[in-house]
Amino acid sequence: MAREEKELEDDRLNEYYGRLQTLHLGPLWSSIQTIMSKEPRPRALPYLWKWDDVYRLVMESGELVTPDRGGERRVVFFRNPGLEDLQPWGWGALTHTLYAGVQLLLPGERAPSHRHNQNAIRFVLQGSGAYTLVEGERVKMEEGDFLITPSGLWHDHVHEGDTPMLWFDCLDIPFVYQLGVTFFENYPEFHQPISQPENYSTQRFTAPGLLPLTDRDNRYAPQAIYKWEKTKQALDQLSKLDPDPCDGFAVEYVNPATGEAAGHTIGAMMQKLARGDRTQAHRHVHSAVYHVFRGQGYTVMNGVRFFWQSGDTFVVPNWVWHEHVNDGNTDAYLFSANDLPIMERLKLERSELYPEKYQTVVGDHLGNGGRT
Amino acid sequence: MAREEKELEDDRLNEYYGRLQTLHLGPLWSSIQTIMSKEPRPRALPYLWKWDDVYRLVMESGELVTPDRGGERRVVFFRNPGLEDLQPWGWGALTHTLYAGVQLLLPGERAPSHRHNQNAIRFVLQGSGAYTLVEGERVKMEEGDFLITPSGLWHDHVHEGDTPMLWFDCLDIPFVYQLGVTFFENYPEFHQPISQPENYSTQRFTAPGLLPLTDRDNRYAPQAIYKWEKTKQALDQLSKLDPDPCDGFAVEYVNPATGEAAGHTIGAMMQKLARGDRTQAHRHVHSAVYHVFRGQGYTVMNGVRFFWQSGDTFVVPNWVWHEHVNDGNTDAYLFSANDLPIMERLKLERSELYPEKYQTVVGDHLGNGGRT
Amino acid sequence: MAREEKELEDDRLNEYYGRLQTLHLGPLWSSIQTIMSKEPRPRALPYLWKWDDVYRLVMESGELVTPDRGGERRVVFFRNPGLEDLQPWGWGALTHTLYAGVQLLLPGERAPSHRHNQNAIRFVLQGSGAYTLVEGERVKMEEGDFLITPSGLWHDHVHEGDTPMLWFDCLDIPFVYQLGVTFFENYPEFHQPISQPENYSTQRFTAPGLLPLTDRDNRYAPQAIYKWEKTKQALDQLSKLDPDPCDGFAVEYVNPATGEAAGHTIGAMMQKLARGDRTQAHRHVHSAVYHVFRGQGYTVMNGVRFFWQSGDTFVVPNWVWHEHVNDGNTDAYLFSANDLPIMERLKLERSELYPEKYQTVVGDHLGNGGRT
Amino acid sequence: MAREEKELEDDRLNEYYGRLQTLHLGPLWSSIQTIMSKEPRPRALPYLWKWDDVYRLVMESGELVTPDRGGERRVVFFRNPGLEDLQPWGWGALTHTLYAGVQLLLPGERAPSHRHNQNAIRFVLQGSGAYTLVEGERVKMEEGDFLITPSGLWHDHVHEGDTPMLWFDCLDIPFVYQLGVTFFENYPEFHQPISQPENYSTQRFTAPGLLPLTDRDNRYAPQAIYKWEKTKQALDQLSKLDPDPCDGFAVEYVNPATGEAAGHTIGAMMQKLARGDRTQAHRHVHSAVYHVFRGQGYTVMNGVRFFWQSGDTFVVPNWVWHEHVNDGNTDAYLFSANDLPIMERLKLERSELYPEKYQTVVGDHLGNGGRT
Ligand SMILES: [Fe+2]
Ligand SMILES: [Fe+2]
Ligand SMILES: [Fe+2]
Ligand SMILES: [Fe+2]
Ligand SMILES: [Fe+2]
Ligand SMILES: [Fe+2]
Ligand SMILES: [Fe+2]
Ligand SMILES: [Fe+2]
Repeated sequence: MAREEKELEDDRLNEYYGRLQTLHLGPLWSSIQTIMSKEPRPRALPYLWKWDDVYRLVMESGELVTPDRGGERRVVFFRNPGLEDLQPWGWGALTHTLYAGVQLLLPGERAPSHRHNQNAIRFVLQGSGAYTLVEGERVKMEEGDFLITPSGLWHDHVHEGDTPMLWFDCLDIPFVYQLGVTFFENYPEFHQPISQPENYSTQRFTAPGLLPLTDRDNRYAPQAIYKWEKTKQALDQLSKLDPDPCDGFAVEYVNPATGEAAGHTIGAMMQKLARGDRTQAHRHVHSAVYHVFRGQGYTVMNGVRFFWQSGDTFVVPNWVWHEHVNDGNTDAYLFSANDLPIMERLKLERSELYPEKYQTVVGDHLGNGGRT
Repeated sequence: MAREEKELEDDRLNEYYGRLQTLHLGPLWSSIQTIMSKEPRPRALPYLWKWDDVYRLVMESGELVTPDRGGERRVVFFRNPGLEDLQPWGWGALTHTLYAGVQLLLPGERAPSHRHNQNAIRFVLQGSGAYTLVEGERVKMEEGDFLITPSGLWHDHVHEGDTPMLWFDCLDIPFVYQLGVTFFENYPEFHQPISQPENYSTQRFTAPGLLPLTDRDNRYAPQAIYKWEKTKQALDQLSKLDPDPCDGFAVEYVNPATGEAAGHTIGAMMQKLARGDRTQAHRHVHSAVYHVFRGQGYTVMNGVRFFWQSGDTFVVPNWVWHEHVNDGNTDAYLFSANDLPIMERLKLERSELYPEKYQTVVGDHLGNGGRT
Repeated sequence: MAREEKELEDDRLNEYYGRLQTLHLGPLWSSIQTIMSKEPRPRALPYLWKWDDVYRLVMESGELVTPDRGGERRVVFFRNPGLEDLQPWGWGALTHTLYAGVQLLLPGERAPSHRHNQNAIRFVLQGSGAYTLVEGERVKMEEGDFLITPSGLWHDHVHEGDTPMLWFDCLDIPFVYQLGVTFFENYPEFHQPISQPENYSTQRFTAPGLLPLTDRDNRYAPQAIYKWEKTKQALDQLSKLDPDPCDGFAVEYVNPATGEAAGHTIGAMMQKLARGDRTQAHRHVHSAVYHVFRGQGYTVMNGVRFFWQSGDTFVVPNWVWHEHVNDGNTDAYLFSANDLPIMERLKLERSELYPEKYQTVVGDHLGNGGRT
Repeated sequence: MAREEKELEDDRLNEYYGRLQTLHLGPLWSSIQTIMSKEPRPRALPYLWKWDDVYRLVMESGELVTPDRGGERRVVFFRNPGLEDLQPWGWGALTHTLYAGVQLLLPGERAPSHRHNQNAIRFVLQGSGAYTLVEGERVKMEEGDFLITPSGLWHDHVHEGDTPMLWFDCLDIPFVYQLGVTFFENYPEFHQPISQPENYSTQRFTAPGLLPLTDRDNRYAPQAIYKWEKTKQALDQLSKLDPDPCDGFAVEYVNPATGEAAGHTIGAMMQKLARGDRTQAHRHVHSAVYHVFRGQGYTVMNGVRFFWQSGDTFVVPNWVWHEHVNDGNTDAYLFSANDLPIMERLKLERSELYPEKYQTVVGDHLGNGGRT
């Protein structure tokens, strides 16, 4: 085609595209390569937040706001740099489906009771003396504990201790937001009444495979809390066996009455990397959010090292190559949450091992993720 | 609080919010009411496209482009006015999860073979003589037929007839796009080979509840096509019985080997409104895309009338009150696709009847949706 | 061991076994080889009943008894010669799980309404003008139709025609009997009221994969009847494709809303053997009961030929090698019922192909099964 | 009808019945009331065996036989007096579906490796130093432990301790036997090789809801043993909460990866009755086999008291009213196995509370069940 002809054709096409646009229509042949890419192109980026920054700002919020009706919770949440331009508020997205933040409750405070169709999980970072109330059960929270508040259950928090209480929250807020189907409801009063024995779950669930007969028809969310002490013991025990090649010694938090993810749409696990461990690189369709509970090391994502230590939060977006390295002097414990249950229920999950065992490191993450 | 104090506090908060933002963090207490609204606030809007507009532009595309490798398909798709600012291309979204468009294949043309992890369904609008090839089966498409191309199956189209062939496509493109997990693959050659008898499905599936023994272990997508003639007969038969109060006489297209939605993540149905029928108003969490196959009438959405006739496309976003009215002189047939399977698998579905039987009409849709 | 010692030891063991028996105890080491055999040793035997015999005796019963409350139904049932010594009544067993019989309803008669936890299926042999009432739906029965009456549904029969009506019944009576868990209940009156349109199922289910929207939450037993005309058409259509190597052209009767066996615990199918067809020999854990609807041929079971023609009934016990041969002048249609759903739900099913294609015939069945 | 006529008619019917019988046919109207009874009429009887008797005879078997290939296991099993006339060996039936016995392994002995399609569970009564090998895992057995050997897994036993080892076995032998579908296979050698770390399960499963990541795809039978120490702790913990009205404080042994019965077709639980406890009377379709692990009391079955103490075995057949009473000076622990999973999978389960809280006691069981 002569140059002139080509220009004429382009003009005509552009004029046509303009008319399509006016009528809220679009040409698939021009857009298919961006909206149906060959491989996943998540807008979420690998990223890492240092605990010093997060902690300082969360504590400062304690002087600025209180957890009242309306604001509901005092949480500083992570905004994925690749998603933060989404309006409003980057949809609270750390990955395409998951929100995560650090919540602060000060001694004597109470956060109001509400329920919503998002699922929530929590992992306790610091402090003691606080309780979560879930559907009438008062549950004591202690460092390292994992808790769930699935869709539709009333929940509120109260702090009877004397030092600040901090925990990590993860919800499927962006997933439900982008579907446009959120429901949120305030409890008629500030607090719900207590209707169950305190720490009812830990009294009913004490050993693997022993289901209380009285729980036979109670399979929705029978176990509210998973204590750190037991998780730690489980991992120490597993450490005598072979590790998972890509995740080290790891346990998934599951519903003891079904074996499915305790957090319903949100998967969660605690993994232990012994001193010197380096996992094999892989990638998978599901995304994950990591909180470094203990230890020091780095995670290589698409060839870039992200250095972490206790308290840091980092994100492994969908289909990003990743491997974890513990190069500190102690065992490392990484807590993580993911959207694997969503991917599995919709038959979208897929994964692959990196062709070699480890990635070639091509750089270090600048700024927050850098090691100084 | 004195006015001055309030200003000081606001300043301090704003300064604090600025520091949060710099570190890619956000305050939940300020954002919770927008990202966790009390009720669904889909950005998708109720809207309607007139067939005249769509048809004219689709036919024009026939002069401008061909279905080659790269562009893949000649489709003009619907961009929901509430979502079209999403980059790129409004993600192809007609609802938060669903893409839909009208595809044109001209006599003698072929569209190249590919596969993807999005699920696709098709509804044939006009023409005859075209075939879809799905995983080795050549399937003849005729007006009113419903077809499926579930995730992961190779498919291509070929037109051996002599008039333009038009069909309505619906895929879960925006859902998979926003998860960031798309996979798309070209078949090594332009076309896949034929490995099954022609119209294999319609030979194997001929009556309800009769499963070929040879299909006992073939439950993924055993039936590729649902012929209009049978759908029409089914609706005529159902018309002698009581209608569904909110949807009239309706059949859902299901997998005959499982009873689940034929389109996997995409539900689909054909509904018939007899002359003069007016359905009861309701709303539901799932969204729906309608194509008016035959007839004339209007749909009231949140109090506004959207007038439709044969060939028009309209969208019922999540949680929008809606009711359908056939005020024409013939029976009306509405084809629709929805994301109910996604909502159900993730336990998000909810619905309610309008307090009264019908909505109060407060206005008519301007522009495209208006009746002239 | 010297002979004397051996005798002493045997004496001691026998004396010990006697003491065990007195206390209702038993020695596993002596019994394991019989109660845990290496391969299935069903007590049920391959057997065949000639239609002449069955028909003559069933018709004679029409002069002797009526279907009143107490006797409930006028049925002559098949007693497997290997099981008929079980008390009482050989438990009604044709296989270890299945009962089958031929029911006769004379013009003007009615059989009383009842329900039970056994599942029932029926296949109509002769006559017209009779109706089954199942849970308020009046269903017309015609030659070749397949019907279901699953566990817990009220059912009664009424005959408004003018010639005797005969059908084949199959229930899981022996299975439920041997579990000792039967429930049976009479409807308070002789008949239940009609609450649904006549032939409601055939009006709602007309084509494969088209589920009436109003049946979305009605998955227990939505389709009461499967008409012969449709079954015949399905088989003729399938005959243009490849047959199942061991079963010829065959369709399974399934619930159109789930794809599972229509008869719940009872599987059922209709298979067509074209003139001259001989299927490949195989065996499987599940057992089957055959009724020859049309045609003439023989079935080789464990090397023995059982000759059949229209109206004959034969049984293929668990794990018996079998192959079917149509040596008549027309297509043959074999109806069969089986306990595959029970085996599958309890993960007991297993099957294997005969090492060669066909068995070596070693004899012909004497007596009833002989061809004269 | 005159007496004479009646006699004539009876004669004619009897003559007819004789002809039916000759042809292996039967009249349903005469038999329906016995083979389809109004309510369950299990042939199994409530019964109880005293430990003194069982123990004495089991120990005596230790002098008479060894666990060699062929006899396989040295077990004395319980024969339900209502079923023991079944040939052969009362089919090993303690209930219509379940076999149970007491197995003895002497110091230094080994029982050969085999597998079968019956499911097995075990409960350890006395001794220590014995191991079970299941599919390559060596599992140490101690008093009060619960173990599983599901269908199809190789298993053998070896005793390295120095006192006799006794355990309670329960299998679904009669259920599989009466279906006529048993498979049993000897391992090519006397023992299978060890391929897993010792006590692999107890190392992997340490706390409720913590699933090792490496077990994600291993859901068939991931946990081989449930230690008494943990069971005891669980029951002590539950004792602070409300008991189940009909079963006291009780835990069901479940598969930690699915929440389903650990024994597949065989349900099992351990229940604790505190001093003075009396449960509410009820009955259910499923049957149960009890072994009194510790304590003293009685169970009322259909109005008759069966007195038990540590080591006794008793059986609660289907649909028998029953309630348990601890009238000893200590807590009582009752182990039980049942066929509830079979009933549930086939939708046969049903249960009801006794109209009053307790049954009226009408007698004491004579003989073995009597208290002296
Ligand atoms: Fe919340
Ligand atoms: Fe990973
Ligand atoms: Fe495509
Ligand atoms: Fe609707
Ligand atoms: Fe019946
Ligand atoms: Fe067969
Ligand atoms: Fe065994
Ligand atoms: Fe009970």
